Amino acid sequence: MALIVQKYGGTSVGTVERIKTVAEKVAAARRQGHDLVVVLSAMSGETNRLLSLIAGVSEEPLAREMDVIVSTGEQVTIGLLTLALHELSCDAKSYIGSQVKILTDSVHGKARIQHIDHDSMKQDLDAGRVVIVAGFQGVDANNNITTLGRGGSDTTAVALAAALNAEECQIYTDVNGVYTTDPRVVEKATRMDKITFEEMLEMASLGSKILQIRSVEFAGKYGVPLRVLSSFKEGPGTLITSEDISNMEQPLISGIAFNRDEAKLTLRGVPDTPGVASRILGPIGEANIEVDMIVQNTGADHTTDFTFTVHRNEFSQAVKVLEGVAKDLQAREIETDNKIVKVSIVGVGMRSHAGVAGKMFKVLADESINILMISTSEIKVSVLIKEKYLELAVRALHTAFDLDAENGSK
Amino acid sequence: MALIVQKYGGTSVGTVERIKTVAEKVAAARRQGHDLVVVLSAMSGETNRLLSLIAGVSEEPLAREMDVIVSTGEQVTIGLLTLALHELSCDAKSYIGSQVKILTDSVHGKARIQHIDHDSMKQDLDAGRVVIVAGFQGVDANNNITTLGRGGSDTTAVALAAALNAEECQIYTDVNGVYTTDPRVVEKATRMDKITFEEMLEMASLGSKILQIRSVEFAGKYGVPLRVLSSFKEGPGTLITSEDISNMEQPLISGIAFNRDEAKLTLRGVPDTPGVASRILGPIGEANIEVDMIVQNTGADHTTDFTFTVHRNEFSQAVKVLEGVAKDLQAREIETDNKIVKVSIVGVGMRSHAGVAGKMFKVLADESINILMISTSEIKVSVLIKEKYLELAVRALHTAFDLDAENGSK
Repeated sequence: MALIVQKYGGTSVGTVERIKTVAEKVAAARRQGHDLVVVLSAMSGETNRLLSLIAGVSEEPLAREMDVIVSTGEQVTIGLLTLALHELSCDAKSYIGSQVKILTDSVHGKARIQHIDHDSMKQDLDAGRVVIVAGFQGVDANNNITTLGRGGSDTTAVALAAALNAEECQIYTDVNGVYTTDPRVVEKATRMDKITFEEMLEMASLGSKILQIRSVEFAGKYGVPLRVLSSFKEGPGTLITSEDISNMEQPLISGIAFNRDEAKLTLRGVPDTPGVASRILGPIGEANIEVDMIVQNTGADHTTDFTFTVHRNEFSQAVKVLEGVAKDLQAREIETDNKIVKVSIVGVGMRSHAGVAGKMFKVLADESINILMISTSEIKVSVLIKEKYLELAVRALHTAFDLDAENGSK
Repeated sequence: MALIVQKYGGTSVGTVERIKTVAEKVAAARRQGHDLVVVLSAMSGETNRLLSLIAGVSEEPLAREMDVIVSTGEQVTIGLLTLALHELSCDAKSYIGSQVKILTDSVHGKARIQHIDHDSMKQDLDAGRVVIVAGFQGVDANNNITTLGRGGSDTTAVALAAALNAEECQIYTDVNGVYTTDPRVVEKATRMDKITFEEMLEMASLGSKILQIRSVEFAGKYGVPLRVLSSFKEGPGTLITSEDISNMEQPLISGIAFNRDEAKLTLRGVPDTPGVASRILGPIGEANIEVDMIVQNTGADHTTDFTFTVHRNEFSQAVKVLEGVAKDLQAREIETDNKIVKVSIVGVGMRSHAGVAGKMFKVLADESINILMISTSEIKVSVLIKEKYLELAVRALHTAFDLDAENGSK
């Protein structure tokens, strides 16, 4: 009898009817003999309702009190699911963060889990009860309520799975798995049966917003197998696990990710002296702007062109900072472009195969798509292209790397 | 610098705007130099919203899980008020029941407070912070969330005032004090400056629904001076305190209470044998029906008439039980009336004055109001009359006992 941790997000528990549906899924898994720990988010909309109450009383709310308020959302859903399970004659008990207890540091709003007591939960599991835990929350050493930040319920689930040495951590969501790329862009996108933690991290950080990156990192670190499933449709979902799958047919590329939220800034004609990169990126970092891709080319005239990308939300702020820097450095000019996107091919297979990047560039060249920037890691190659080419590029790459489903997306 | 406990009910914190108004009152009291502990209810409507979610998933909800859910209402308001106080530069910190901690027994939904830890609150008070406590909730010895039942926030406030040895416990509500009778019935009803705990208990249990009876009992037991004030209007309110007020002008009668929720049942022609009262009231009690007034008259023919009153909600159930009893006892007949009301005069002054009851009966007789039943205690006289005479009786008594204000209610 395996111990399984299941996590249901806000949409899955968004109404009383949906909570009853979740109860049926949980009760069915229990009848199969599994020991179950279920982690819940707040009902969808509830956290925003609470945030708007907070905005009504305070412009710069204290993080401690925000946590007191927003943590109530999950407290309501765990009680409701426990009641719904009892209606199905399935014994269950709810736990808020302090009852588990999930000990965190004291960084309100984005606390990190330090330790999980599992004695009390284990007693309930041994007594045949389903344990229902409020996601997203914990307590610090002084019994202050803390929250792990938005999406933190995934992290709670993975942390519980690690602490309880669960066989699997199942994340129920509104999609039925992780796809080779966004099915809204490529009709022939296919659900992956398996993907490695590393690949999932690259896919997630590049725009496939299914799982919180932190929870995937966490699962990888503690070797907790993660499975993404649909709350609404039956199916095996996608298993995210370690690389040691002895799968000879491991594809070269697992998926194509893309990100529309990029903006590019170039400083032209900067004197090519040591330390110039830090003199440019220092002020950007101080303004709390995150930089993604960076390219520096040296020209013939002892000057250099320095290009980097930022999130589109921070574009105008970045331009302002860069104007100051350009003056200090006596740069020739600033060039900006926020009509660009990043497209990436991701796959652990490329570790052992040369020529993957070259193939990607050729596919794009064949479509007459100009590459503005390139960045690579061990398991991905990213290119920056004009926004208007996004769909064309993703579809061409999806076909070229043999990811297309035979009969449309499944 | 006195320590004051203030309690604000659901209407007083029903909107973001009202929470800000409460924050201003609290901040003003703090500026006067008082140490403050503030107890809050849930925003009005919130507890009902949560109860309807519960009703959506469960017909017979587990009390433990109901407490998990409904206790979130107060948790939201304490966070919001704390934030609103910080906006006014008034340092404050919120506490849920488990953080205080307010230790209760394990009777979910109507738990009783067993002990209050005040170390942490005292540290905050000493540091100049206002302490904001969630009303209505506590934790049992196993860290399960408990609630004290509806209206339990008053009890929380009194218990905190007792534990912290506060100078006064102020209950802010939507009326500006306790009146000599209901101003909606008697225009000349007047706000009392002072009333004793015993009088307040009689007034409250008889239908002046300002304070929870339990909190008044509790305040009396621990000698915590209670003050009822309006959240919306300035004013001294009504102080509820012990009897040792050396007030020579203590009025004979403090107020007139009435209760529309009575129903009367009479069993006629019961054999007048020992134990007959218990044979009638035993089955009524077993059916969980609470009996209020009881009268037994012995007739000439060795039979007796037995009359008692119950809450109108339980009238039809009581009739059903009594029909069985009548058969067993071979009683002649059952007579019932649910168009009756109870009117009471209340005052500690009557302890030292004879003739108060007689005066009451004469006032009613002068208005040709027939008295159906009489019951007395040390500080009150209650009569049962036909419902249609209610307003007439209350107004006549209010005038006769010199309670009328000179210029209408104030």
